[in-house]
Amino acid sequence: MNSKIDSIVVVGSVALDSVKTPEGETQDALGGSAVYFSLAARHFTKVKMVGVVGEDFPAPHRDMLSTRGVDTSGLQALPGRTFRWVGRFGRNLNAAKTLDTQLNVFETFRPKLSEDQRATPALFLANIDPDLQTDVLNQMTAPRLVACDTMDFWISSKRQVLKDLLKRVDIFFVNEGEAQKLTRQTNNVRAARKLAEWGPSVVIVKMGEHGALLLAGGRVFPFPAFPLDTVKDPTGAGDTFAGAFLGSFLASGSDLHDVQALKHSMVCGTVMASFNVSDFSTRVLESVELSAVRQRTREFADMLSCSCNGTAAHTPPAKA
Amino acid sequence: MNSKIDSIVVVGSVALDSVKTPEGETQDALGGSAVYFSLAARHFTKVKMVGVVGEDFPAPHRDMLSTRGVDTSGLQALPGRTFRWVGRFGRNLNAAKTLDTQLNVFETFRPKLSEDQRATPALFLANIDPDLQTDVLNQMTAPRLVACDTMDFWISSKRQVLKDLLKRVDIFFVNEGEAQKLTRQTNNVRAARKLAEWGPSVVIVKMGEHGALLLAGGRVFPFPAFPLDTVKDPTGAGDTFAGAFLGSFLASGSDLHDVQALKHSMVCGTVMASFNVSDFSTRVLESVELSAVRQRTREFADMLSCSCNGTAAHTPPAKA
Repeated sequence: MNSKIDSIVVVGSVALDSVKTPEGETQDALGGSAVYFSLAARHFTKVKMVGVVGEDFPAPHRDMLSTRGVDTSGLQALPGRTFRWVGRFGRNLNAAKTLDTQLNVFETFRPKLSEDQRATPALFLANIDPDLQTDVLNQMTAPRLVACDTMDFWISSKRQVLKDLLKRVDIFFVNEGEAQKLTRQTNNVRAARKLAEWGPSVVIVKMGEHGALLLAGGRVFPFPAFPLDTVKDPTGAGDTFAGAFLGSFLASGSDLHDVQALKHSMVCGTVMASFNVSDFSTRVLESVELSAVRQRTREFADMLSCSCNGTAAHTPPAKA
Repeated sequence: MNSKIDSIVVVGSVALDSVKTPEGETQDALGGSAVYFSLAARHFTKVKMVGVVGEDFPAPHRDMLSTRGVDTSGLQALPGRTFRWVGRFGRNLNAAKTLDTQLNVFETFRPKLSEDQRATPALFLANIDPDLQTDVLNQMTAPRLVACDTMDFWISSKRQVLKDLLKRVDIFFVNEGEAQKLTRQTNNVRAARKLAEWGPSVVIVKMGEHGALLLAGGRVFPFPAFPLDTVKDPTGAGDTFAGAFLGSFLASGSDLHDVQALKHSMVCGTVMASFNVSDFSTRVLESVELSAVRQRTREFADMLSCSCNGTAAHTPPAKA
């Protein structure tokens, strides 16, 4: 029964994003949490994407996902337009300013999983309505690993639904501001510990360009971001992180008590996110080779390593 | 000639601080860059403090520094009142709001080094007027290692003096906002590289609770902060970091090309700063034992270590 988990269902948004940053801009470029997650996770595990698009969704995007190994049979096409997001990042690349959100077909999205999807052993619930997240989880037959994300909007409007959902979640990904708001704490470590009390045995507090905290086995492990000279577009960094984290964790065949495997997955997630933000939309995620990811993973682990076996102390000279 | 450097002169402020944070407050408590630096560095090397206080400076503070091994013969007492700073930290513990600054005797501080101080092989110039920093450096006979810090105010008012000083500095400590302002870059990595072009072979960009970047040998190494449940008072964290960094680096007997030694010093600085911010004023720095610092240093290095020798990839099952 403890065989390696070989596949994951992701339920989230598929979008056409128009993003402006100090480094340039895009118009109706491929985006959405399910897309970023899938493109990151596909290197490590089989990914089944569940989402919805409109009639205007370009066929090449669907083809691209398929040729990258993503199972898009759960990507429903409905009459109407695809979800659109218009955002801008200023110099502070940690915070996007939403200029426009057109939910379109995403407004009435009620995911209905296929038999195959229900029987999948792992599930990632991207930051959709907690009521929908709960409904999707209820459809799963016997999930062995459940992870989720959320966003500011749902913390304000559906805090209790989210708290109830967390009781059934193993790994919770959350931004630092959201973690503090949700737990009413002003410190990331305390916020993470409070969230773990609510259910998830693993909590990951994301801090954008400042890295992320891992809470696992009651211990907190801080990780910096991979240092980059240029960040062109932070869109999707969190979902990319989650995709590479969960994909590499499933591929390791480890359980949630294996702190070393979780730390390795933090490094993988950090590295994949660093590739993603180095260009707009999904450009890098579409093309990056696993070998490049592995090389940067080793480089990053090496950056962090420190042989600190003790420090010489000051010994006052003996009197003459 | 390449014997280990056994002592350092620090020139900076000695203050009585009144600080309010969400965790409490102090009135006229011991502070100042030279004090935090000295108390952190004293575990690792001989520290000669150069500063000025007024007639109202409590004798027990001077005694405390002496009994901690700090050479306070360069701590001049002048008629008048000691420098006072009144500040408040809100929920965002990275940014202090200055409510009042009374320079008092610090206003006319013109450090004049003794023969013994001039002949000291290492120098730390805390964040005083760049003209004074330059004047102090000019008094040194043959310094083998020169480090400095600065602050926002001097970047606005004396940018060129600071740039000229940096040509003669080996290690530059600077906050991320200041680094970006000084170099007119919007990215910490680019800012660090630009600063290194101006002179220092080692640049450390401090990011408060989000850690610090080390630029050494043309490479960038990110370090997170040590995760704490409670930060009571961030005052002096940067100077504490610099003190433990430089002290442990001198104690290692390494040169500036030794990236491993520099990384170890980053860990030492981070750990000492984590002790400092866990209580108000210099309370923890006065009492913490080197053994406790060493233990947390090993713990932190262990947190950061990750054995990332490669990740299993997804292998699609062979067709039946």
